[in-house]
Amino acid sequence: MNIKILGCHSATPRSNFHTTSQLVELKNHLFLIDCGEGTQVRLREEKVKFSRIKNIFISHLHGDHFYGLIGLINTFKLLGRNVDLNIYGPKGIKEVIMLQIKLSNSWTNFKLFFHELNSSKPELIFEDSVVRVNTIPLNHRVYTNGFHFQEKEGFRKINFDKVKKLKIPICDYENLKNGKDFINEENKKIKNIDLTLPPDKSLSYAFCSDTAFYPQIVNQIKNVDLLYHESTFLNEHKELASKTLHSTAEQAAKIASLANVGQLMLGHFSTRYKNKLLFIEEAKSRFENVVLAKEGETYKI
Amino acid sequence: MNIKILGCHSATPRSNFHTTSQLVELKNHLFLIDCGEGTQVRLREEKVKFSRIKNIFISHLHGDHFYGLIGLINTFKLLGRNVDLNIYGPKGIKEVIMLQIKLSNSWTNFKLFFHELNSSKPELIFEDSVVRVNTIPLNHRVYTNGFHFQEKEGFRKINFDKVKKLKIPICDYENLKNGKDFINEENKKIKNIDLTLPPDKSLSYAFCSDTAFYPQIVNQIKNVDLLYHESTFLNEHKELASKTLHSTAEQAAKIASLANVGQLMLGHFSTRYKNKLLFIEEAKSRFENVVLAKEGETYKI
Repeated sequence: MNIKILGCHSATPRSNFHTTSQLVELKNHLFLIDCGEGTQVRLREEKVKFSRIKNIFISHLHGDHFYGLIGLINTFKLLGRNVDLNIYGPKGIKEVIMLQIKLSNSWTNFKLFFHELNSSKPELIFEDSVVRVNTIPLNHRVYTNGFHFQEKEGFRKINFDKVKKLKIPICDYENLKNGKDFINEENKKIKNIDLTLPPDKSLSYAFCSDTAFYPQIVNQIKNVDLLYHESTFLNEHKELASKTLHSTAEQAAKIASLANVGQLMLGHFSTRYKNKLLFIEEAKSRFENVVLAKEGETYKI
Repeated sequence: MNIKILGCHSATPRSNFHTTSQLVELKNHLFLIDCGEGTQVRLREEKVKFSRIKNIFISHLHGDHFYGLIGLINTFKLLGRNVDLNIYGPKGIKEVIMLQIKLSNSWTNFKLFFHELNSSKPELIFEDSVVRVNTIPLNHRVYTNGFHFQEKEGFRKINFDKVKKLKIPICDYENLKNGKDFINEENKKIKNIDLTLPPDKSLSYAFCSDTAFYPQIVNQIKNVDLLYHESTFLNEHKELASKTLHSTAEQAAKIASLANVGQLMLGHFSTRYKNKLLFIEEAKSRFENVVLAKEGETYKI
């Protein structure tokens, strides 16, 4: 699973700082999370093939998380896209996108599906053979969800030493991968566990932005391999964080610690801070394995 | 009068090409025309003081001319603006902006006035002591206006050689500038024309984008000092221009010639053309005094 950061700053875009947007790549999937103004340019800069994006998850309807969506949809249309597009986001997102399409008389030549969200409880919003995506209801000034990506358990892996030794025919490998036992010509059963190895660990990622310190999410994100948690502020602006329902680096680290995650990634930085290393320093007092989101970087889970 | 080009490309923004947006500076005024996605970043790059922009004119509701407007308004709010903002644009613009403000619960802390347009005839939409702004109805796929800026005639200028020779008191200069005659102590009238010089020529600018070749505008833009006219295409794509209701460089030059303008500026280029000098070459066959819009440049009238 790869996480590519397109933008990880809060509030307003600048020449060198972009508002929230990131890509989650998992097997054949390329999910886009949030779409601040200028995301389409960031996607071009990172040479992302537009047609690979089939599902866009929008956390909330503040501008720094979704003002780039209508432009991206419009560009998809202008480039002649014919692949379906699914958009998951708060109730209201369909009305605002469709109103702009209507006013510009720029109807898409691809199918555009909206999945509007308004539940205050976690919901399964996407599932296929590869991955499950659940919402993580957060605590912000408007209705906001994080997203939890849980890779499904893969197939068992053939233990080649064993199958070769026992001369298992290749045509039986698929059954073995699916967990079935093997019956040989003498009608003797060989247990699956003696011919295969466990599947790779299935990976998980939780994206949590924007939110105040909100321990209610801990149970849902328990043990994820990577947690992206917003840290708009440092502790020196704790009151501002509290007032605007954002988090500090220390609060993000507390959540990471309570949820026993593998790694914490901090993002959604206020542009007021010149030295981002202070975020790491502050978080490390509570949780050791922490990295800063950096625009243009890809993080492998 | 200064025209600063923030973006002059069509359709979709790129890293190095921006969609339509420009500033018209005239005395105390700084008017913004159109606001494609990323305009707020372009304004920052050009170090424009946001609070100087009090009037924004939107030609039409295609994305490359207005998707940056909501982000700009939101940034004005985040920066604590307290100066009124007036927006002139096609009917529907208020609904789409207000819906987004409502959904994000981000009400402005400054007064926001919408002046919605739907007339198919030229309208006076702004007037003060300095300038008159009229719409120029254009011919495009959706309701579209250009904008005609006509500076008002200034005050007469004191002829210092004459007034000093005749010892006219300084306190009478204002009356002279306003065209009044002077009565001296012997009750003798000295005509204003003998004490003053004519005011500077009042300047005019016409912005025409997007539009098909549309000679109906010629009367309205007759003799303007500078005409910005879209030339999305070259003649080699004349049929595409005709189909999409855009113009070629030659068609823009024909309009400039018919209207006897001082200078023609070409813009709204399709990014398919690598060599922009071809636009100049094509236009010069019809009209000599032509320049290319270039992002970041300021053109003095």
